[in-house]
Amino acid sequence: MKPNALSALGRRTALPPISWLMQTALTRPKLISLAAGFTDNATLPVEISRKLLNEILRSPKTGRPALQYGITAGETNLRQLTARHLQKFDGADDRAHSPDRVMITGGSQQLLYMTIEALCDEGDIILVEDPTYFVFLGILQSQGIRARGIRLERDGLDLAHLEDVLQRLKKSGELRRVKAIYLVSYFQNPTGVTTSFAKKAGALKILKKFEQFAGHPIYLLEDAAYRELRFDPPLTIPTPSPRPSGKRAGVRGFDFETKGLLTPTLSSIGGGEGEEKSALAVRGFANRVIYTGTYSKPYAPGVRVGFGVLPEPLFTAVQRIKGNHDFGTANLLQQLLARALETGLYDKHVAKVQKNYARKARVMKQALAEHFPADVEIWESGGGLYFWARLPKGISAGVKSKVFQTALKNDVLYVPGELCYADDPSRAKPDNEMRISFGSANEENIREGIKRLGAVLKKFVK
Amino acid sequence: MKPNALSALGRRTALPPISWLMQTALTRPKLISLAAGFTDNATLPVEISRKLLNEILRSPKTGRPALQYGITAGETNLRQLTARHLQKFDGADDRAHSPDRVMITGGSQQLLYMTIEALCDEGDIILVEDPTYFVFLGILQSQGIRARGIRLERDGLDLAHLEDVLQRLKKSGELRRVKAIYLVSYFQNPTGVTTSFAKKAGALKILKKFEQFAGHPIYLLEDAAYRELRFDPPLTIPTPSPRPSGKRAGVRGFDFETKGLLTPTLSSIGGGEGEEKSALAVRGFANRVIYTGTYSKPYAPGVRVGFGVLPEPLFTAVQRIKGNHDFGTANLLQQLLARALETGLYDKHVAKVQKNYARKARVMKQALAEHFPADVEIWESGGGLYFWARLPKGISAGVKSKVFQTALKNDVLYVPGELCYADDPSRAKPDNEMRISFGSANEENIREGIKRLGAVLKKFVK
Repeated sequence: MKPNALSALGRRTALPPISWLMQTALTRPKLISLAAGFTDNATLPVEISRKLLNEILRSPKTGRPALQYGITAGETNLRQLTARHLQKFDGADDRAHSPDRVMITGGSQQLLYMTIEALCDEGDIILVEDPTYFVFLGILQSQGIRARGIRLERDGLDLAHLEDVLQRLKKSGELRRVKAIYLVSYFQNPTGVTTSFAKKAGALKILKKFEQFAGHPIYLLEDAAYRELRFDPPLTIPTPSPRPSGKRAGVRGFDFETKGLLTPTLSSIGGGEGEEKSALAVRGFANRVIYTGTYSKPYAPGVRVGFGVLPEPLFTAVQRIKGNHDFGTANLLQQLLARALETGLYDKHVAKVQKNYARKARVMKQALAEHFPADVEIWESGGGLYFWARLPKGISAGVKSKVFQTALKNDVLYVPGELCYADDPSRAKPDNEMRISFGSANEENIREGIKRLGAVLKKFVK
Repeated sequence: MKPNALSALGRRTALPPISWLMQTALTRPKLISLAAGFTDNATLPVEISRKLLNEILRSPKTGRPALQYGITAGETNLRQLTARHLQKFDGADDRAHSPDRVMITGGSQQLLYMTIEALCDEGDIILVEDPTYFVFLGILQSQGIRARGIRLERDGLDLAHLEDVLQRLKKSGELRRVKAIYLVSYFQNPTGVTTSFAKKAGALKILKKFEQFAGHPIYLLEDAAYRELRFDPPLTIPTPSPRPSGKRAGVRGFDFETKGLLTPTLSSIGGGEGEEKSALAVRGFANRVIYTGTYSKPYAPGVRVGFGVLPEPLFTAVQRIKGNHDFGTANLLQQLLARALETGLYDKHVAKVQKNYARKARVMKQALAEHFPADVEIWESGGGLYFWARLPKGISAGVKSKVFQTALKNDVLYVPGELCYADDPSRAKPDNEMRISFGSANEENIREGIKRLGAVLKKFVK
């Protein structure tokens, strides 16, 4: 290797796996990508945005501030609207939901990055769901931070495993390196799992117990990026005839057998998961919860505005770091979102988006039922952009697997689940899983893509 | 101190001094701020932006991509337009000016941050101009990077001093920690100095010489944030009668004595400084120059789009880091700027901005001549947003000085020059200087602000 001047971080930062997947997608024009977590092109608020930007820029009085520098933590107006937005969701109007704690950022991604900068030194430990959002794993990897996986159940974290992992870290003297647990709490990327409010409260209590041994706070970092992408109406497909079922208690709303289809095992989390409150609403823990959300996914990714709620001393630290990153997110985008929220057009748009994704999820669900082998276990969700599929143990769906390579040859792409697991030496990475997204593909491509993928799987799964 | 979980970076990152100044400004409603480096509200392109955004969002064909996710390194179109923009300035169309090397970022600030992340480990050394852009010093401070000041002359870096500092670092065995020299090369913040092309080439040669001892490349990081804010026409004030001058050779265009005014010592850099080529145009050094520029200042800070030109392996490293920061700057803003550049409206707007700043600079120059004591040395520039004033040695203009406090009491604010000097143990920080900006104040406030400041100075300077 030729000598270069790069820092440890510069050398360490890896190409995100998703880049490679997207690159691959570009080189095969006929490829149907069920990999991208893009939002649906058809629902982008082109007309609303034009109308609102016109209103903002019609007069110098509102137009000039939108084109001028702003405040590092974000525009006061948008911070207040964001706090109100969260209060509405959580049905709470307390310290944890105060505008003073709200920071506006360039997507929630920037907030995740800065929070990790503010919290972690090289060698520190962040607990993550097993599996979790792979770009977050990229942040940790680049900063030399260790991730430890906590098992995921259908209603979120396995709290017994959380306690067990903390206990082991206590024994090995590493508890002081643990700074936070990271949860993608609604319609998780990649599994679609929603963590119940009870589990969030339970996790906070467990963390609190171990703080005395850590010697400092251990935070719950709640990433609620998909919170607003819940399905309305909830994901169901009309059943020809309701029938009692012992064997298929986990299957909701769709009776595959009456259609004589191959029947993947569909299970669902139970209703109301979109309504779970955030960890901010757990009483007595306002100073231990960091919450990140985004307007990008529900509104438009091209208007990259995210937000966070941070307790002190994190708020001040992250605000200062943001002063060095960019001293404030583009005002024009902030004003656009503030006006969308104020006028109610944001809510109207989100309702439309929810219906659209629900429709596409139904299309995918139906296609999965038609085309996937019976032995593939499918996790469906009450929102978000993803189905999670688990092949029988021993059949790899990883990047180098025959399944993945054959799928690629047949012009269909998914995200190998193994990419969503942290490098945690205490367990092997499962490689038999797939993240399948209905986010960006249209209905026809969803049907065709699942058909192709099903045909591939049938070669490897009985 | 209560135990907290912050990282070294989180604890280290300081409140930027400018925040405190801006905070102060907000609490005194009558205060005239000559401190803010804001751009002029009156020139913001409200109408142009409305027109262009309407064009972009009128059809789904251009509107949807503008609201969708993009590419981490930036939109291909804007990267090409940016490369062409730079080629035009530098009169060169070579590898150093290739679109492949261009990255689009959230203001040039983000690029500075990521470049330092990619290059520097804690304890590394960056050479900076003495004085330099204080937010850049904040980045270094937060990352635990040491800054060493290189003396500044009226045409840029003191190359002999650069060589001397490198020699000393070589002797002390610290050369391997030196990663780059940072130059604000056009109408510098804070002094207004423009570094000549010859000096850029000279600096690159000196760095090259020391690379063999460092064991790795040493980069020239050229921050050209003010490049397009050159005065057109150049800064002159009509002279009643041209006269030959021995004593005042450095004074251009304005004859203070014929008006019987108190005469501060005005000196200027000589013409054409806006036309100096960038370091990218130095032949044979394409792989050693990192260039950052911005559309924020010439167009609109509320449309925060900056750009950089990076050689490998830096381009790849910074691109990956950006993947973790935000995987791409907001597309809507990128499309807006691309269209402004394509239609020529950008150039038209910049011409207007240049005229406006030239006019305000003339107003400030005249006011300085009228109101400032003769013993204050004024550095004027061919562009940018700043005058630099040096009080006689021994008279402090620092944050805690009588001059600054009296100015504040008299409702006028400037940036104490001492804030622009790195913490460099090898020399004392000068504290007798002031950065005075005509960026955001209107003409009336410029006149009144300088009048107030002049009255304050007359109490302390003969």
